[in-house]
Amino acid sequence: MHHDTTTPLRTRAAVYGASGITGCELVRRLDADPRCEVVAATSRQHAGAPLRSIDPAAPELLLVHPDEVPIAEIDVAFVCLPHGQAAPLVEVLVEQSRCRVIDLSADLRLRDSALHARVYGSTRGARVAEAAVYGITELYRGALCDARVVSNPGCYPTCAGLALWPLAEHGLLRERVTINALSGISGAGRATTPSTHFCAVADDVRPYKLGRSHRHSAEIEQILADAAPAGEQAPPVVFCPHVVPLERGMLATITVRVGELTAGEVHELFERRYADETFVELLPLGEPARIRAVVRTNRAQIGVHDVEGSDDVVLTCAIDNLVKGASGQALQTMNLMLGRAEHSGFAPTEHARLPRSSAPAAARRSACR
Amino acid sequence: MHHDTTTPLRTRAAVYGASGITGCELVRRLDADPRCEVVAATSRQHAGAPLRSIDPAAPELLLVHPDEVPIAEIDVAFVCLPHGQAAPLVEVLVEQSRCRVIDLSADLRLRDSALHARVYGSTRGARVAEAAVYGITELYRGALCDARVVSNPGCYPTCAGLALWPLAEHGLLRERVTINALSGISGAGRATTPSTHFCAVADDVRPYKLGRSHRHSAEIEQILADAAPAGEQAPPVVFCPHVVPLERGMLATITVRVGELTAGEVHELFERRYADETFVELLPLGEPARIRAVVRTNRAQIGVHDVEGSDDVVLTCAIDNLVKGASGQALQTMNLMLGRAEHSGFAPTEHARLPRSSAPAAARRSACR
Amino acid sequence: MHHDTTTPLRTRAAVYGASGITGCELVRRLDADPRCEVVAATSRQHAGAPLRSIDPAAPELLLVHPDEVPIAEIDVAFVCLPHGQAAPLVEVLVEQSRCRVIDLSADLRLRDSALHARVYGSTRGARVAEAAVYGITELYRGALCDARVVSNPGCYPTCAGLALWPLAEHGLLRERVTINALSGISGAGRATTPSTHFCAVADDVRPYKLGRSHRHSAEIEQILADAAPAGEQAPPVVFCPHVVPLERGMLATITVRVGELTAGEVHELFERRYADETFVELLPLGEPARIRAVVRTNRAQIGVHDVEGSDDVVLTCAIDNLVKGASGQALQTMNLMLGRAEHSGFAPTEHARLPRSSAPAAARRSACR
Amino acid sequence: MHHDTTTPLRTRAAVYGASGITGCELVRRLDADPRCEVVAATSRQHAGAPLRSIDPAAPELLLVHPDEVPIAEIDVAFVCLPHGQAAPLVEVLVEQSRCRVIDLSADLRLRDSALHARVYGSTRGARVAEAAVYGITELYRGALCDARVVSNPGCYPTCAGLALWPLAEHGLLRERVTINALSGISGAGRATTPSTHFCAVADDVRPYKLGRSHRHSAEIEQILADAAPAGEQAPPVVFCPHVVPLERGMLATITVRVGELTAGEVHELFERRYADETFVELLPLGEPARIRAVVRTNRAQIGVHDVEGSDDVVLTCAIDNLVKGASGQALQTMNLMLGRAEHSGFAPTEHARLPRSSAPAAARRSACR
Repeated sequence: MHHDTTTPLRTRAAVYGASGITGCELVRRLDADPRCEVVAATSRQHAGAPLRSIDPAAPELLLVHPDEVPIAEIDVAFVCLPHGQAAPLVEVLVEQSRCRVIDLSADLRLRDSALHARVYGSTRGARVAEAAVYGITELYRGALCDARVVSNPGCYPTCAGLALWPLAEHGLLRERVTINALSGISGAGRATTPSTHFCAVADDVRPYKLGRSHRHSAEIEQILADAAPAGEQAPPVVFCPHVVPLERGMLATITVRVGELTAGEVHELFERRYADETFVELLPLGEPARIRAVVRTNRAQIGVHDVEGSDDVVLTCAIDNLVKGASGQALQTMNLMLGRAEHSGFAPTEHARLPRSSAPAAARRSACR
Repeated sequence: MHHDTTTPLRTRAAVYGASGITGCELVRRLDADPRCEVVAATSRQHAGAPLRSIDPAAPELLLVHPDEVPIAEIDVAFVCLPHGQAAPLVEVLVEQSRCRVIDLSADLRLRDSALHARVYGSTRGARVAEAAVYGITELYRGALCDARVVSNPGCYPTCAGLALWPLAEHGLLRERVTINALSGISGAGRATTPSTHFCAVADDVRPYKLGRSHRHSAEIEQILADAAPAGEQAPPVVFCPHVVPLERGMLATITVRVGELTAGEVHELFERRYADETFVELLPLGEPARIRAVVRTNRAQIGVHDVEGSDDVVLTCAIDNLVKGASGQALQTMNLMLGRAEHSGFAPTEHARLPRSSAPAAARRSACR
Repeated sequence: MHHDTTTPLRTRAAVYGASGITGCELVRRLDADPRCEVVAATSRQHAGAPLRSIDPAAPELLLVHPDEVPIAEIDVAFVCLPHGQAAPLVEVLVEQSRCRVIDLSADLRLRDSALHARVYGSTRGARVAEAAVYGITELYRGALCDARVVSNPGCYPTCAGLALWPLAEHGLLRERVTINALSGISGAGRATTPSTHFCAVADDVRPYKLGRSHRHSAEIEQILADAAPAGEQAPPVVFCPHVVPLERGMLATITVRVGELTAGEVHELFERRYADETFVELLPLGEPARIRAVVRTNRAQIGVHDVEGSDDVVLTCAIDNLVKGASGQALQTMNLMLGRAEHSGFAPTEHARLPRSSAPAAARRSACR
Repeated sequence: MHHDTTTPLRTRAAVYGASGITGCELVRRLDADPRCEVVAATSRQHAGAPLRSIDPAAPELLLVHPDEVPIAEIDVAFVCLPHGQAAPLVEVLVEQSRCRVIDLSADLRLRDSALHARVYGSTRGARVAEAAVYGITELYRGALCDARVVSNPGCYPTCAGLALWPLAEHGLLRERVTINALSGISGAGRATTPSTHFCAVADDVRPYKLGRSHRHSAEIEQILADAAPAGEQAPPVVFCPHVVPLERGMLATITVRVGELTAGEVHELFERRYADETFVELLPLGEPARIRAVVRTNRAQIGVHDVEGSDDVVLTCAIDNLVKGASGQALQTMNLMLGRAEHSGFAPTEHARLPRSSAPAAARRSACR
């Protein structure tokens, strides 16, 4: 297998934007993985400072200026910069190095460049936008495994996407989908604004950007369109995000009209779809997903719920926004790209189960070809 | 007016079940109101103990056994007992005393006794069930002001009812209504169970009884049916409650299909409906309701939100589950029944505004006749 | 009495720096008090904006630029500016108006100007420093009631001062006093820094400025020196403040060596000292003070604790840092200055008890002469 | 070395009392360690139920009745039963099996049986009490490594003991030591009582058992006596524990009079004492320990702080009460007993650093002989 020859024993990684919450989580996890080595963790603002001065639970490591990264020597670059700043760096990395790039920003998520410009108010190079492969690991595995540049999905789209894909791929979403979602404040990053102050988050719940005004609405609709059977239209979403007084964790509660299917039949669809997934835990019918069960893990927990006397079904999906919703998924995709078992480097309690088949990683790799 | 002759200067109140969270909040507020006097606060389990031994912020007052209440001397009795235990007490009070009764339990909320038996698994005396007038103060004022027995609504129904009534009364709710609601753990009372332990509530969000399985679903549908124009059917609800890591506060985020109306027109409907309400604060179009703005007050904050490119509208409504969702509303209704200004006894920051008209209380009282 | 002629029916107040947490709390309370009127609430940065845009629970009121305050028309000015900015304003107010001034900043707290300069790194006008009367209402009543300018104490000094005064005034503190104190993050104000971010405060306890490096150490030692019998030396303190994951509330746990006195005798000293105080609640011997019992009130709760087999005693004192530790105490002192009952304008649940004597306010006023 | 022959490749462990917080944490960690196998996790009350039904983050595993443990087949038994119930089980295990026993209860901590009876109100078998070796891994290594029965220390004693030992062993503690300590509520276990209810813990800080009335006072004094140079008396402690609104984490802030030594010299003592310790992180002089830095790790963070102009020094020590204060330390000691590197099975971010010397585990093992 090609990765045996091209992948060195220890993957040499650079993390751009390591002082942010996502970047820091990534460094912590890469540093703890004996198969990886953090060659450089960058910060323009804090270059020279120990990462631990920013996060007391970070590993001991000095931040460096991005220009100091030895890009010729790295295998994988993780880009955790704010949107608008990531795409230009990705372009440079693609042109000047041979490393694989996983972009955790929003710069390359929306394939439609006009839509991207409208939603994010920024443009990006056409070449890099075309090169990037978007996707949730479980749902876009075939395309991701050979990608040079990966666009790691947003947290809400990961959460809603995992919950909706099994229905969407069978063309079962014919009406608008109502997604209520709750997120810990770490989703807003380390920015110190009045709305991230302890006193503004504690003892409150704050709905924001309701309806279709949150940027992730478009990304969720892109996922639903990707999943839809050829020739079928994906439904619009009503997306209502809220900040809850948690540091981390995310829960989506979704109402869909599934028509003829019972909740039990919906549950079976999910069972089949995710049977071999290490990081997806489908709960028994009627048992709701909970943030506490997934926080600090790369797991997604999914619940399917009957609505008595109706043709609606409620879905719940919980992830840790910083792990499966960001850094963990980036590492899972890195593992996929490098031909490793996807759960490699994750603690046993972080994944739902080991894959059923005896040679799952190999099987998946071959499925990529 | 009869209440001028029968109501003494200081209203003499008894609170049954005063050791619970709702009862305790009621005692605290009655005790702080110079126009009221707490004649007795009862607890079977804690009779003889100071209320402050249960809640360090409670006023200094000894709990008494319910049998010790001098029922002949009280003007109003508040019943804060668990469901199943309240109705029998209400019956005794109605028969043996002349006081008005405000029942904060669920025993008398559902008018349909068969439905009540199915939902709550308990029965109740036919006479008391018939005598009870159910209602959110703002929405059932006419019936409440002369009631002998009032059934104070549940917290979720108050929150969802205030948000949906202005649409429901115009027959604008023609499709299923999706209600996602978040509540602080005090909604579960003082019961010490694994699910109220600090470690089970902190750092988690817990959906529960999703779809139509929460008892408040039926009560919300009763409100929508009460509001519906004659001959029109009320829509079913999909109701998804969640426990969030807050002591108190409640938020409902509701998606409704309003068809031809724009969000602006919906906002105008709300403006007209609640223009003279002291305790309802309609936010500018697009501004979401927040728990922090209403906690420890009797206010309801309502937001109306456009969903771009769709005929849906999102509504948000925040209340304090212990105040407007329980004890505060009970006191507001007591004021109404006694012919007082509804905000009498509430701190100025607890209501949204003083009523516009110069003699609102009088005007409302006459509207009751 | 002079205040009967000079005090108008409604006290006309201005709050400088109303957008801060302390200023905002003060506005909320003044606005809710029918005997007061907020003539102006100022903010340089937010002039023109509604206060509610900063704090959703604030009353409806527009912030104005400090230059727009009609200083000739106000009775009391509250200065809630950062230290360094307050003293110059106080000077202007003293010279150009006739209003009384209550300064909630640290500018005038330390009487020794050299010490002030060393501790705060700022100087202040000699005249205003001399005019200012420092003090916790209960402990400096005689001096405060006729003051033109009051310097409202810091939160930690209020908490520790109330707990230590009864021992200090009897010369019983002969050894170093160990003060461990815990404060909610609101003590740091609204500043949005990495250390006030929700993720930095939640799930953590952060000791800071341990030993004698916190500025309040000097202020606590000034209180102990004020209390000490003539000719006796006040002891040094070891002061260890911590931030705990609370919005508001403060607790000091203090260890003192009292030598020959038993804990019971210490308790009696406290009983005598605070018998007539509306806002001090002395708990039964051995019962610890709790933040929950005092938060959102102007009360201080004090506990006295035996240390078995030792000549040490432990004291606990809890206050709300924003109320008794700031705005509430300022209003209590305002009441004192205006000849009102000190608890005037406070809700009944906010004070420990009504004073025992039948004419306490009058008695105290005369004690001031 | 004997352990090489008696220890199988995978350590077979039983956890008694696995449904409690400590037991559950132990199971989670043992299950995640490829060198260990959880042969049985017991619960009388929940036998037959999945552990995950009690803690959603637990591994998938069914609880069994204690009688079902195949005690002949296990290498190590962890006893996480309430005090009073643990010692009898330890006795049975010692008599009927060959496994090593690590008791996490308080039953065997106090060597003086009369003191134990007075403090805990329960007695214990003389034989098992004599056989048990008490100790914090770093401080009692020599005795622990060959123990048949280990008594794992309490959380507060671990925290205070690590902070005080370097001074105590040099006879530098000559006066009473003031220990203020803060603990997350998980220290109280899963018991569902009014004081563990979310509403009783959130928004509060609760001092309890102040002075010398907490059971851990005696255990801390036993540690100080163990450390004291021969013939020297250990000082008494004033111990003030508090519950803070955290799930987990513990911080001790300690004031000691060190006389002639400067804070810098004290810091050097600590540096020498803990230079080779994997799990002790000594912070630079003046930098305080923080709960956030150690939570979910087996690390202890220690800070040393000058008190300007005094001969006192303040020490801060933070641990996770459930890890270094309970389950983590038990596993560290298990590693020591089995001749493994002490950090074996812990994630890299859980320990402060790898030991300096190249063969630390071997060196330590030989030091045990």
